[in-house]
Amino acid sequence: MVEPANTVGIPVNHMPLLKDELDIVIPTIRNLDFLEMWRPFLQPYHLIIVQDGDPSKTIAVPEGFDYELYNRNDINRILGPKASCISFKDSACRCFGYMVSKKKYIFTIDDDCFVAKDPSGKAVNALEQHIKNLLCPSSPFFFNTLYDPYREGADYVRGYPFSLREGVSTAVSHGLWLNIPDYDAPTQLVKPKERNTRYVDAVMTIPKGTLFPMCGMNLAFDRELIGPAMYFGLMGDGQPIGRYDDMWAGWCVKVICDHLGLGVKTGLPYIYHSKASNPFVNLKKEYKGIFWQEDIIPFFQSAKLSKEAVTVQQCYMELSKMVKEKLSAIDPYFDKLADAMVTWIEAWDELNPPTKA
Amino acid sequence: MVEPANTVGIPVNHMPLLKDELDIVIPTIRNLDFLEMWRPFLQPYHLIIVQDGDPSKTIAVPEGFDYELYNRNDINRILGPKASCISFKDSACRCFGYMVSKKKYIFTIDDDCFVAKDPSGKAVNALEQHIKNLLCPSSPFFFNTLYDPYREGADYVRGYPFSLREGVSTAVSHGLWLNIPDYDAPTQLVKPKERNTRYVDAVMTIPKGTLFPMCGMNLAFDRELIGPAMYFGLMGDGQPIGRYDDMWAGWCVKVICDHLGLGVKTGLPYIYHSKASNPFVNLKKEYKGIFWQEDIIPFFQSAKLSKEAVTVQQCYMELSKMVKEKLSAIDPYFDKLADAMVTWIEAWDELNPPTKA
Repeated sequence: MVEPANTVGIPVNHMPLLKDELDIVIPTIRNLDFLEMWRPFLQPYHLIIVQDGDPSKTIAVPEGFDYELYNRNDINRILGPKASCISFKDSACRCFGYMVSKKKYIFTIDDDCFVAKDPSGKAVNALEQHIKNLLCPSSPFFFNTLYDPYREGADYVRGYPFSLREGVSTAVSHGLWLNIPDYDAPTQLVKPKERNTRYVDAVMTIPKGTLFPMCGMNLAFDRELIGPAMYFGLMGDGQPIGRYDDMWAGWCVKVICDHLGLGVKTGLPYIYHSKASNPFVNLKKEYKGIFWQEDIIPFFQSAKLSKEAVTVQQCYMELSKMVKEKLSAIDPYFDKLADAMVTWIEAWDELNPPTKA
Repeated sequence: MVEPANTVGIPVNHMPLLKDELDIVIPTIRNLDFLEMWRPFLQPYHLIIVQDGDPSKTIAVPEGFDYELYNRNDINRILGPKASCISFKDSACRCFGYMVSKKKYIFTIDDDCFVAKDPSGKAVNALEQHIKNLLCPSSPFFFNTLYDPYREGADYVRGYPFSLREGVSTAVSHGLWLNIPDYDAPTQLVKPKERNTRYVDAVMTIPKGTLFPMCGMNLAFDRELIGPAMYFGLMGDGQPIGRYDDMWAGWCVKVICDHLGLGVKTGLPYIYHSKASNPFVNLKKEYKGIFWQEDIIPFFQSAKLSKEAVTVQQCYMELSKMVKEKLSAIDPYFDKLADAMVTWIEAWDELNPPTKA
């Protein structure tokens, strides 16, 4: 049985990487006691807390953390009518935090995620590993059998083209989970006791042209490179679907990264995921997604963006048009989602006006 | 520093998997003392030893192993003029062993590969892991972030399309190497002391559409599914290139597996690779390949086989035509190689006549 690490006594890192260039985004409905365990690693950073649900509730944040907090009233006030693109009663609301950040990098984590231990028993500084992943190039055009060639003790193997060894900029670092794996409701129901105890000591680039299921629980990205594509869609209150927010973002992000020549990495770091969500509740949220993904994934697999789309915003607007054209036939929801994608970009650009040259 | 495992005292497995359905192919120029360490795991299986170089030399095989041995005279006798497609003075000659085998599965290993230890210190039964890899499906159409979903304690994660969860048949299992990594000569020269000490406890499917550098040192495959594509090309004596035999096979195999809907896995098992080859000698063998691969890889990345190609042989014949058409401009060598690819298929079919229905 894997257990979370005990971080008491680990000194705060006094030279935190990218301290002034990274925000930590946390969606929550409860007091953030989970941050106590993260204190040695996360306290130096600025937090953006997106409070979901009842805005009159007070969220307690442990002493000593530097944060800003937005509840639904704040979101409505800041975005006005465009607030319609931000989900309510669903952790998809976290993407509001990406939008109001002014930093280059984002790390987002769920409040039921704790510090994992590596096989030697050492507490894993997840954020530090994400930063390493983001600062090293990716290698999406050819597979390297020894995984990340930029890690210490590794390199590109024989037969890897030299022209590809500089790699490309990394836009996304997707971390994994020990203990409760990120399973869908049917798998949770079939394997209620399965726990992930396998610590795979690898980081790898997801090859160009390959989609993946991006989980939002333990995720970091370069906001300047890919931020406007990190929209977590319309989920939760008033929507026919939930638990597909991060998946939707992942499909869009991967198609756009492939088009723009950016890298997506997965693997380390692990967090310790403590709490299995209720599979019956999950099934209710997911069941339409389980049907729909059978059409959505082929749609994204064949999505081709035009040469004219050279910014993330342009790519995303093209994708929204394709969603309207090709996915609305599945359900009117996709018509609404396509509109929300446009609203999201408009809101993003409003809060992040292009800097003048 | 990683060290090979000490296998003395490990009892021979009395229920070896696929004992009568698998041949072990070993190319060599020396006595096979390395088999002593493998005895607990490999002794139950039949060996096909392909002796390279001087056929008058005697190769000693440790007591108790069941084997057949072919030297150059045997190859010439069995294949006649078609023996021209089998390389001489290069481990590429191993593919003759694939051709004369009558078994469903092949495991091929170099004679400088020893038994590795896993992080718990246990000797790794490489063949057993290869067999597990080959007997479990692959998942090439979508990436699973928890790696091989068929391993104990793992599954497909949330967002993985259910229609893809049955996977496809696995044709190839590509194992890795602790200690001496499989680097090209330039990397060997730059990092002479680098050793691979990272045991990554994962098996994964290489996604469809992604090429990889296939190393022939520790490799298993389903001969019935992909055997005729496992041609290691023309290398060594009389050829302008060496050390690209397994790479060539890997590119061809992956394109054909993608076309036929077959899976290729990489990762576990590790072997302990003991001996770094001489980087200066390697550079001489490789330098043309290092240039050429810059054109060869885009060629394979864009190679499209026709719908009419439904057998491995048909696919391979189409590839040989494309090689002649598109790569001969690089060097006349590719014209010769394309012809050898045809000869290889003719020889394969001669030794492996189609069974009548």
